[in-house]
Amino acid sequence: MSRTALIRIDLASRVPAYEQIASEIRTLLVTAELQAGAPLPTVRQLATDLNVHHNTVAQAYRILADEGWLDLRRRRGVRVLSRSKTPRPRPDANCTFQSQLRSLLTKAVAEGLAPRVIARQLTLHARHVITWPSAKGE
Amino acid sequence: MSRTALIRIDLASRVPAYEQIASEIRTLLVTAELQAGAPLPTVRQLATDLNVHHNTVAQAYRILADEGWLDLRRRRGVRVLSRSKTPRPRPDANCTFQSQLRSLLTKAVAEGLAPRVIARQLTLHARHVITWPSAKGE
Repeated sequence: MSRTALIRIDLASRVPAYEQIASEIRTLLVTAELQAGAPLPTVRQLATDLNVHHNTVAQAYRILADEGWLDLRRRRGVRVLSRSKTPRPRPDANCTFQSQLRSLLTKAVAEGLAPRVIARQLTLHARHVITWPSAKGE
Repeated sequence: MSRTALIRIDLASRVPAYEQIASEIRTLLVTAELQAGAPLPTVRQLATDLNVHHNTVAQAYRILADEGWLDLRRRRGVRVLSRSKTPRPRPDANCTFQSQLRSLLTKAVAEGLAPRVIARQLTLHARHVITWPSAKGE
């Protein structure tokens, strides 16, 4: 349950809370900080911890269950599944990713973030992304 | 007015159309494909071209005007302003950017996009971002 401490959301953000929660947990899953068999807090527990409505957490959990990461069948808590197969990407996945990346970068530059700071982060993540456990064997 | 052809939005996306329009135009501004003094289509013209409500385009234009990119005072059309100063980034700008980047990358990996494809895009953009005209002199 201590994992809850690793999930941070910004209630002032324009990104819906359920998307933030799903995204935070997805990061822990993709980087294998949360591994198969690991328990997650119950919907109500996490909702209390994050100070959101339990429907918000339930929605985040459903998204991750639909993606094949979580087993929601248990009455208490939620478990991480072994996601043995990486899904086939949609035909437009690369195009969509490029467009979202460009959008993120131009927004950061427009907001005054130093391009060298951005470039450093990109280079760093280019090295990280190929080491993420779920990325192996592709 | 031919610039309209450079703006592509996906009406099926969960990202609101006004954000997509603002983002597409922001990219043209940051990369200086749209330069100071350049005319943009009127709200109604762009709305017709993109098949969206004119309020949607008006909202996108207002966002960009608030960011200092556009002059909306004219009755006909809209003009790109000379944005001589890059704004000071918010104190949490770097942190927010890192979080959004990580979120984008883990989602792409989770959806099956090959990490090497992602890494290549990151490396490519790390080189591009420091050459964007509005990024000079920071």
